[in-house]
Amino acid sequence: MKKPSSYTAVGKNAHRVDGIEKVTGKAVYAGDIELPGMAYAKILRSPMAHAKLVKVDASKAANLTGVVAVLTRDDIKDLNYRYGATYKDQCIVAVDKVRYVGDPVAAVLADDPARAEEALDLIDVEYEELPKVTGIDDAIAPGAPLVHEGDVARAELRGSTYGAPERFKGTNICYYFGYERGNLDEAFKKADFVFEDTFRFHKVQHYSLEPHTNIAYYDGEKFTIWSSCQDPFTLRDHLSGIFRLPLSRIRVIVPYVGGGYGGKLYVKCEPIAAALSWKTRRPVKLVLSIGESFKTVTRHAARVTLKTGIMRDGRLFARECQIFTDTGAYADAGPRVTQKAGYRSLGPYRIPHAKIEAHSVYTNTVPAGAFRGFGGVQVTWAYESQMDMMAERLGIDPVNLRLQNLLKKGEIYTAGDTPVDCDLKEGLLKVADALKWKQKSTKRYTGKGLGMCMKDAGGTYKVAGATVRISSDGSVVLLTGTVEIGQGPRTALSQIVAEELAMPLDQVTVAQLDTDVTPYDISTSASSSTVVMGLACQRAAQDAKKQLLQCAAKVMKQKAAALSLKNGAVHTRSGATAPYGKVIMEFFGSKAGEIIGKGLYRDKRSKKAVLGSPTTFWEVGWGGVEVEVDPETGIIKLLNYISVADVGKAINPAQVHGQDEGAVMFGIGHTMLEEMVYEDGQLLNPNLVDYRVPTFENLPQKFSTSIIENGNGPGPFGAKGMGEGGLLPVASAVANAVSQAVGVRIQNLPLTPPKVWAAIQEKQQSR
Amino acid sequence: MKKPSSYTAVGKNAHRVDGIEKVTGKAVYAGDIELPGMAYAKILRSPMAHAKLVKVDASKAANLTGVVAVLTRDDIKDLNYRYGATYKDQCIVAVDKVRYVGDPVAAVLADDPARAEEALDLIDVEYEELPKVTGIDDAIAPGAPLVHEGDVARAELRGSTYGAPERFKGTNICYYFGYERGNLDEAFKKADFVFEDTFRFHKVQHYSLEPHTNIAYYDGEKFTIWSSCQDPFTLRDHLSGIFRLPLSRIRVIVPYVGGGYGGKLYVKCEPIAAALSWKTRRPVKLVLSIGESFKTVTRHAARVTLKTGIMRDGRLFARECQIFTDTGAYADAGPRVTQKAGYRSLGPYRIPHAKIEAHSVYTNTVPAGAFRGFGGVQVTWAYESQMDMMAERLGIDPVNLRLQNLLKKGEIYTAGDTPVDCDLKEGLLKVADALKWKQKSTKRYTGKGLGMCMKDAGGTYKVAGATVRISSDGSVVLLTGTVEIGQGPRTALSQIVAEELAMPLDQVTVAQLDTDVTPYDISTSASSSTVVMGLACQRAAQDAKKQLLQCAAKVMKQKAAALSLKNGAVHTRSGATAPYGKVIMEFFGSKAGEIIGKGLYRDKRSKKAVLGSPTTFWEVGWGGVEVEVDPETGIIKLLNYISVADVGKAINPAQVHGQDEGAVMFGIGHTMLEEMVYEDGQLLNPNLVDYRVPTFENLPQKFSTSIIENGNGPGPFGAKGMGEGGLLPVASAVANAVSQAVGVRIQNLPLTPPKVWAAIQEKQQSR
Repeated sequence: MKKPSSYTAVGKNAHRVDGIEKVTGKAVYAGDIELPGMAYAKILRSPMAHAKLVKVDASKAANLTGVVAVLTRDDIKDLNYRYGATYKDQCIVAVDKVRYVGDPVAAVLADDPARAEEALDLIDVEYEELPKVTGIDDAIAPGAPLVHEGDVARAELRGSTYGAPERFKGTNICYYFGYERGNLDEAFKKADFVFEDTFRFHKVQHYSLEPHTNIAYYDGEKFTIWSSCQDPFTLRDHLSGIFRLPLSRIRVIVPYVGGGYGGKLYVKCEPIAAALSWKTRRPVKLVLSIGESFKTVTRHAARVTLKTGIMRDGRLFARECQIFTDTGAYADAGPRVTQKAGYRSLGPYRIPHAKIEAHSVYTNTVPAGAFRGFGGVQVTWAYESQMDMMAERLGIDPVNLRLQNLLKKGEIYTAGDTPVDCDLKEGLLKVADALKWKQKSTKRYTGKGLGMCMKDAGGTYKVAGATVRISSDGSVVLLTGTVEIGQGPRTALSQIVAEELAMPLDQVTVAQLDTDVTPYDISTSASSSTVVMGLACQRAAQDAKKQLLQCAAKVMKQKAAALSLKNGAVHTRSGATAPYGKVIMEFFGSKAGEIIGKGLYRDKRSKKAVLGSPTTFWEVGWGGVEVEVDPETGIIKLLNYISVADVGKAINPAQVHGQDEGAVMFGIGHTMLEEMVYEDGQLLNPNLVDYRVPTFENLPQKFSTSIIENGNGPGPFGAKGMGEGGLLPVASAVANAVSQAVGVRIQNLPLTPPKVWAAIQEKQQSR
Repeated sequence: MKKPSSYTAVGKNAHRVDGIEKVTGKAVYAGDIELPGMAYAKILRSPMAHAKLVKVDASKAANLTGVVAVLTRDDIKDLNYRYGATYKDQCIVAVDKVRYVGDPVAAVLADDPARAEEALDLIDVEYEELPKVTGIDDAIAPGAPLVHEGDVARAELRGSTYGAPERFKGTNICYYFGYERGNLDEAFKKADFVFEDTFRFHKVQHYSLEPHTNIAYYDGEKFTIWSSCQDPFTLRDHLSGIFRLPLSRIRVIVPYVGGGYGGKLYVKCEPIAAALSWKTRRPVKLVLSIGESFKTVTRHAARVTLKTGIMRDGRLFARECQIFTDTGAYADAGPRVTQKAGYRSLGPYRIPHAKIEAHSVYTNTVPAGAFRGFGGVQVTWAYESQMDMMAERLGIDPVNLRLQNLLKKGEIYTAGDTPVDCDLKEGLLKVADALKWKQKSTKRYTGKGLGMCMKDAGGTYKVAGATVRISSDGSVVLLTGTVEIGQGPRTALSQIVAEELAMPLDQVTVAQLDTDVTPYDISTSASSSTVVMGLACQRAAQDAKKQLLQCAAKVMKQKAAALSLKNGAVHTRSGATAPYGKVIMEFFGSKAGEIIGKGLYRDKRSKKAVLGSPTTFWEVGWGGVEVEVDPETGIIKLLNYISVADVGKAINPAQVHGQDEGAVMFGIGHTMLEEMVYEDGQLLNPNLVDYRVPTFENLPQKFSTSIIENGNGPGPFGAKGMGEGGLLPVASAVANAVSQAVGVRIQNLPLTPPKVWAAIQEKQQSR
């Protein structure tokens, strides 16, 4: 095994392999694709949050010149039209009722998008309004109106690997995750203090610059879908189910994707485009507007109540977590997100007695699905806020309180899961140090705060394959199912292959992702690609290397074991060299040859693990911040932000820093700015003007990211995945700092100026 | 091993898997592809057969509104602009001189094709006409003007695996193949009779319904080419050379191809489209007209002189073959075609003493390249005509003369080559029988004739890879580099995979051919696909099957050896079954998995073999015909045609019959109708009106094809390739029948009515 110091490709700040294409505007995204005979789809969406569909008549729209076809509930009856990531509770277009403002009711396909838009107005829909539930509290109140009457989702629930106990029958709770250890009641009695605090997290949107876009074409034999999605193989499974076609007759191609953050996981609007093409046999393009993306998927709003038993000396002793997440009108990935929120709610701490109950709740709002952090953001906000609140109550320094309770490397989070794979103290001390934690802020209205997280990463049960092809000139094409969403896997995975094959990076290219030909990959999610796909790519390169050495052994008349690879050539011990291309040409006796290496990664299954599969690795991040609060306006100024990530080994340090910086900025968004504002079930700000994301103005005045490389990851060259760890601590770190600065503790995000100002006012008045 | 009687997919007349797509017009050909920002190219072609290029000024054209770019010799200097299948004697556009009418001089790229066409007129070209050679006799005459002055082609010649002896320096002969055995001079002295006859074959065109079409797009990082070509990997090699890019940065995609017949092998007009995109970074579409395809590639005209020594009893004893082929202005595949023509010129007969000299000759006409039969058509025409001529001279029945001299199964054609792999008599007797050979035609002016051929098939040195992917629902995607040109490999290869994996054919689909992801295949040519790619696919399926059984062994808790596959399910001996999808899902524990099988076929290399590699298999065909000649008009009516092909095992009998019928009709074309008519170096009939191909009117009144299945092929299930064997005997069979019918022997094709009439007249006058 090579020493890190001898790496030629890994650990280098290689330029992004997709860089030139992207900065020159040549990179192809789904929206760039035009096909001969293409028609354009638009969706009619429900203006009501909850209503019975009395009538849907699209005949006038269908007769408009330029309209190719309409799609209503009448058109989907022959299809297996119910679908969903977890439960089949969603229909291609609404059938019996609409469940949120934005729910697709019908669609029009026309020769141009404007005509399709125009035709939407001609669709005659009669609604019979129903009472609605628009938040967690409404939805779980006794006698609340039901978003789903029960038959659909319940049927699926029973057959699902997830479960909702019988007691939730006839309620809006569609999923329940429970976990218990020790003796909670006893422990609360024994604990010196028991603190119960409730935290709220709000609905935010992924805000990908590229909205959901797809092109579907069914030619009578085969479906081809170009989609801006993060999991083409899952999409293929779903479409196979809907259209009752074998997987081999569905081909999903993924061009570059302009941001995903989880919002492009699982099925979204693809079935609408697909059904229109199924009906018309024409290529159908469906490009959502940004506003429609807001009405397609969001992050889960959540209510998290933590009841924590703690000893006087600061020892955590017991915790009960009551979690409710708002999954909106359809479950989407909600149950899985809720499960993860529950599972992650103990944080990186040793807590002997614990009980977790996490509930996924239907409401008449936009469906909530996968979103960077996947349930972890909501619970980290809660447990890291409460850590500081308890530290204050007990008069213990928040850093010390954490240090005292942190799990040690090798310790167990829950029985059956992977032991903790890094030193949790290291990063915390690094942040504290950089923040000069012990040095009190001297300026008035300033304060410091920190937070950290530990997240079971990689996703539950990953499978990934990769292929490495060495052509007769020695250059390589890599086949990988990881989607390039902007996060840089094309570059990092190419670096892994280049390192393993000891060749220049510019000789490696990545083939277009196409489910027909690309080896299976479960999804691009959960910070998994560098580890999971990285290992598949590394193994494929190793397989190719083995074959290359065997060829070289024949050609160079040496034993394979006596040969080594360096800079694109095979070297003998005596100093003879042959470039890879020469080896392959001579072995095959002409240009007619190549070497194909295969690699596969599979997570282990384990019945002992709480989630059925031990975590691939622990993603750990730490954040610290110094803020200044203006008590007159409530404006929080970020004076300094420090983020530290444990990455095992950075394949491309510049990209790793970029990811971590992005993660923090993302966190700043939902901590201070972003919020989907609802009124009476209507979303008021689904646009780029009224919904505010961080800009350069919101950058911390000082901002640094730091990576820890101890080679402790299971990935290639000791790498771990990263990119979410920087995000999770932000909200609590800022809230903790605000509390220190102005003495107010805000437990419901975001920390907008009016909210901070009001809290300060209230505090001053209560004095 | 299964018995043929138990086959479920192989040997069945399965419907073409591309059938629905094609009859509904949904199948995508290169011409159907449109890309955003696409521009359209047109080529300015030389009006002169041979001229020095004094001036090429495209500045006026470049300034025309709508013109994106022009391409002249000034634009290609930085490229490695010389290319060619065998020698690099061709330039992207003409540099120093033009060498045939149609030689590309410049190109224009414009926003629409009409504007590009218009701009061609604005290109100012000054030619200085040079003396030309327009046929073999001209070109090999002493002191003939040289098509190539020698430096370019010669330089390549020296480094080539082919060779031209020093004595051809400074001539138009660009390639020479020689072969000798026994003692020819002695043998001619010992022979009872020595007959010397010369036969001529004319230039004909491939006449693919789809002319050459390609789209090239260089985005600054990677070249993507959609091309109607038969050998995308070879094209990739050539473009890699021209643009000095690694193979991994060149991606060739092949949609359906509308006919090839060899005319779409090797590089054609792709470098022009590619150079325009290289210059402009825009997608470039270049669609040749039919007329331009006529000016791109043709079949080799040939002059074949056979001097044959024969014994009184009919025993062939010695033969000298002097072959000259007209390869036109550029070598293209000419040297290889000439080599094959030479190698094949002894026919299926035992001839102890032999000498072959085959020469490829440059002329100022359209380049001649690969064409169904690849040199075999020209020499079969000669040797099978001469067989009948000798039979007549000796008073021996032509069938008996052949039977007496045919090689036996297991006998050697030339030392080092694969022994004859079938019974050559079988088909001959079958044809004679079906033709009622011994029964004299009773009607006046009618006659019977027959011919046969034996062709070293599969191409010289084939390499092919294939991949079989079984998805988690048990359906299969096959990755194969064989181009679907209409000849049916998608169906046949799918049948092979379905048979090997014991699954329904409709669960198998074939992925798009894309050099980035499809395993290497050298080319779709030489009747090779069923054997060569067939074996690769079969091996890939076997590899997948082995893995599937291993998975099933785990899932079903059985030994793999105790399991068998049947109808898409794994069966245990006790009768338990599990569909493939279930096995994969249970093995992987979710839908997240697949099985990938790899297969590779490589021809053997052998220094002992005359051509360096023993033939993959012998392709053998027989044809018999009864004609009626109208002495008043010279019109030949085909009363009955019988074709017999040795196919080893027909994977899809209906397709095999279709191929053989097509081959015969193809032969009828060049035998009786097709001819490229030149006058003073100008091609007079490059269009679909003046160049006549057979239509339904030209079908024989009775027409039957018969296949012999002895399982003697090296391919899957005993298959051999076919599709050329039916073509080769046609011309000689018809000429032999005409001779019997009206007593005239025509030795230069085609047998057009005027020619036949004139021969009859001449004969009558000479009486």
